[in-house]
Amino acid sequence: MATFHGHFSSVSLGGMQTSLQVILPEHHLSTPNRTLYLLHGLNDNETIWTRRTAVERYADTYGFSIIMPFVDTSYYTDMAYGKNYWTYLSEELPKAVSSYFGLNPDPASTYVAGHSMGGYGSFKLALNHPEHFAAAASFSGALDVSSLLEYTPEDKKDQRRRSLNIIFGENSDLDSFGGDLFTLVNQHQKAKRPLPNLYQFCGTEDYLYNMNTKFRDHLTTHNIPAYYEESKADHTWDYWDYCIETFMRKISEAEKGLD
Amino acid sequence: MATFHGHFSSVSLGGMQTSLQVILPEHHLSTPNRTLYLLHGLNDNETIWTRRTAVERYADTYGFSIIMPFVDTSYYTDMAYGKNYWTYLSEELPKAVSSYFGLNPDPASTYVAGHSMGGYGSFKLALNHPEHFAAAASFSGALDVSSLLEYTPEDKKDQRRRSLNIIFGENSDLDSFGGDLFTLVNQHQKAKRPLPNLYQFCGTEDYLYNMNTKFRDHLTTHNIPAYYEESKADHTWDYWDYCIETFMRKISEAEKGLD
Amino acid sequence: MATFHGHFSSVSLGGMQTSLQVILPEHHLSTPNRTLYLLHGLNDNETIWTRRTAVERYADTYGFSIIMPFVDTSYYTDMAYGKNYWTYLSEELPKAVSSYFGLNPDPASTYVAGHSMGGYGSFKLALNHPEHFAAAASFSGALDVSSLLEYTPEDKKDQRRRSLNIIFGENSDLDSFGGDLFTLVNQHQKAKRPLPNLYQFCGTEDYLYNMNTKFRDHLTTHNIPAYYEESKADHTWDYWDYCIETFMRKISEAEKGLD
Amino acid sequence: MATFHGHFSSVSLGGMQTSLQVILPEHHLSTPNRTLYLLHGLNDNETIWTRRTAVERYADTYGFSIIMPFVDTSYYTDMAYGKNYWTYLSEELPKAVSSYFGLNPDPASTYVAGHSMGGYGSFKLALNHPEHFAAAASFSGALDVSSLLEYTPEDKKDQRRRSLNIIFGENSDLDSFGGDLFTLVNQHQKAKRPLPNLYQFCGTEDYLYNMNTKFRDHLTTHNIPAYYEESKADHTWDYWDYCIETFMRKISEAEKGLD
Repeated sequence: MATFHGHFSSVSLGGMQTSLQVILPEHHLSTPNRTLYLLHGLNDNETIWTRRTAVERYADTYGFSIIMPFVDTSYYTDMAYGKNYWTYLSEELPKAVSSYFGLNPDPASTYVAGHSMGGYGSFKLALNHPEHFAAAASFSGALDVSSLLEYTPEDKKDQRRRSLNIIFGENSDLDSFGGDLFTLVNQHQKAKRPLPNLYQFCGTEDYLYNMNTKFRDHLTTHNIPAYYEESKADHTWDYWDYCIETFMRKISEAEKGLD
Repeated sequence: MATFHGHFSSVSLGGMQTSLQVILPEHHLSTPNRTLYLLHGLNDNETIWTRRTAVERYADTYGFSIIMPFVDTSYYTDMAYGKNYWTYLSEELPKAVSSYFGLNPDPASTYVAGHSMGGYGSFKLALNHPEHFAAAASFSGALDVSSLLEYTPEDKKDQRRRSLNIIFGENSDLDSFGGDLFTLVNQHQKAKRPLPNLYQFCGTEDYLYNMNTKFRDHLTTHNIPAYYEESKADHTWDYWDYCIETFMRKISEAEKGLD
Repeated sequence: MATFHGHFSSVSLGGMQTSLQVILPEHHLSTPNRTLYLLHGLNDNETIWTRRTAVERYADTYGFSIIMPFVDTSYYTDMAYGKNYWTYLSEELPKAVSSYFGLNPDPASTYVAGHSMGGYGSFKLALNHPEHFAAAASFSGALDVSSLLEYTPEDKKDQRRRSLNIIFGENSDLDSFGGDLFTLVNQHQKAKRPLPNLYQFCGTEDYLYNMNTKFRDHLTTHNIPAYYEESKADHTWDYWDYCIETFMRKISEAEKGLD
Repeated sequence: MATFHGHFSSVSLGGMQTSLQVILPEHHLSTPNRTLYLLHGLNDNETIWTRRTAVERYADTYGFSIIMPFVDTSYYTDMAYGKNYWTYLSEELPKAVSSYFGLNPDPASTYVAGHSMGGYGSFKLALNHPEHFAAAASFSGALDVSSLLEYTPEDKKDQRRRSLNIIFGENSDLDSFGGDLFTLVNQHQKAKRPLPNLYQFCGTEDYLYNMNTKFRDHLTTHNIPAYYEESKADHTWDYWDYCIETFMRKISEAEKGLD
């Protein structure tokens, strides 16, 4: 696969230089035309997936272009005190990759995935824009943002509270900006709106495990079918390396009618 | 010159991945042992100086290693709502470049420079840590941060006010964290503390011109010698390309007794 | 401007990973649709133009996308003992940039330029594929490759002879593969084939100066109009920084009818 | 781990710009002080290990700094028709990483590994400079260079012969420049010179499998102890991802007395 890393000025981010990593099919090969938006976790940047996993190899094996943006520690949100990373991700980025790389993917072959904060971002994107994606995956996702504080160790609660205020504002009214995944599920069920296929992975040793079973149960209760898989794993990159390959393989097999 | 770009985890930034660009002398050549911290402006990143100017060529001509960090839109501040970029720049970065590149520069041959927001950062660093630098340069610097709002066009004042609150807090008490350059000058004069040589460049067409003459006059009033140069120039990269070369040439000549 | 650096597998180079640097217009701005292939000199790589000059700034000012490939020390040739960099440059690279960046430039707005070995490459490309380019520029170009050995200091002649053998073969029959610029000029004059506009820059202190005046005279003798400019300059990057901006400005002015 | 990618001018390569990728321990963490030179295969470059495997993650887990140079298609040789990549690798590169990154590793904690052509390079380095390395690993290595032609499919033999001539010269006298691993083994046995620990991995489905069992048997015959492991695997990156992690884990365990 070909890979490019670079910088451009983002309108949504106030004109700021932002960085982007992409993996593209070799120009001389005809490969399946799938596109995957791959989202990073808290404290990561756009290079982290290529550095901690073998994702470029899987892109080759299973036939994906991959787009890896940078969103700072924004929780894929238009921050209460900070930049509009949600607008950047959901509106500007697709235009940017169309302009720079000629990527205009068909929703039927467009995917989104991410780990931890990026798992939340992945489902947030899929549930707010179901018409843009064929499937979405969360690996050890921080899926219940409104309860994040409860999952934080006592001695780090003050710092976490402060961070959450910066991102979501003092009142953390997640619903008002499409940020609560549970509410979004409710709304979709009521509207009987078709959803992308959801793939949820989590390790049983993960500190976010209970948050993940809660979301799984919420989907079940609302009769929203989803792929759910758990393993004896923690909140670590060796697991996410396994997850991303498994997700890409499953997508590839599903399209071949093997899943 | 050799050049490297990369990423590492910053403690001051909460463990976040941060990006760094450096220019180093070729390993097989003996070049003067000067080190320059080169700071970016608002909405730029660590790559901007190498992209908009020929700074690597000047590093070769005048004998400098160059360190170019990323500080987001922080105004080189521990942000009221955001990350501790001041701590990162002033405390962690020197340790990081010592660890990664073996750079342990002598203060007598260490310099800092920047444009716009980075001009403010350069003088803020030099006036808070005069013992670390031989000289500091500001190119079209936003030197009077407390009056930035006045320099902002009416229709952008709301957005600017919001940005300043995020950076400096609602009360914007610059003095309390060593952020007001005018106060720092007063303090140094009273303490008769030796200061790095200050180099101030500004274009007469720059929207920050009055802010720059105000600071120049403040230095003069307080009997702090400084190099001041103005040209018919605007707030643009062709001028900063001229400024950085001129500053590096002047440092080089001064050390040879030519200035 | 946006900029990307990356790697892909080249068919012409036997499947080898090759590196590419590009500068593209910001996705949200409508800029003139000019494309410039910008070629490096001996011992350089695809990053050198961005590192030693402010070319990204000029791309913005004058409205160019820029493609900067890597060709090793090949003299833009399918090497006698080595890789097929000429095929890569002249046939594969346009397809690659079309695939990766959606760049399908109109010949009327496509340009090529380079310095030293890259000046030769630029004119070689323009004279072999005049239908692809509106103009070509050589800065201090090694335009008379067949006499390169004469321009080499006595104590380096052996090494140079060896290098030339590796590139061009023991007999160095430049004509047989379209490598002699003087012969190409003759052929074009006879065929009355329309040529791209040629821009030739050289410093009077350059060790390749006589080679450049020889080529200028050859063009004059054959009634091929060309822009020729010489300055008191040597074979150095400060001059090429001047040359590339001047060339881009002249192209921009010419299209506006100012030249 | 921190990671940097960049460019510098190499003396051994005639002053040419060469590219280098490194992975370094985070500046704020005390990690084991192991250094691994990690070598690429034919048609790869300095970025390939980070792109096709999760090597940065293993560097973190097992405590290694990693140096990844670029050697073109040179077979880690001072090429008959080309550049002196052997001199670059074996003499200049250690000085370069000492200069740029302050890396001056103790031979007792210095390692070398590579796949395919890089497996050959790894053992060539270890057998020519046993005093510099604690261990060396070959993954699917092209260990018997003198028989490479026999391993080449009939329809590609001409191209391969041509490539080998460019690298090793018409007579391919491997012995004369320390390039035949079998001869080196003989010499070491006679001289009873201590050798680095050798780790040899190969897949049974690999087209170089017989070459690898031949070398394994040669070591056995000469009473040189080595770790040998084979799996049902082909000449592919998923296997090398497994190999590099396994090698690093074994080194780590051996130092802890677990191996």
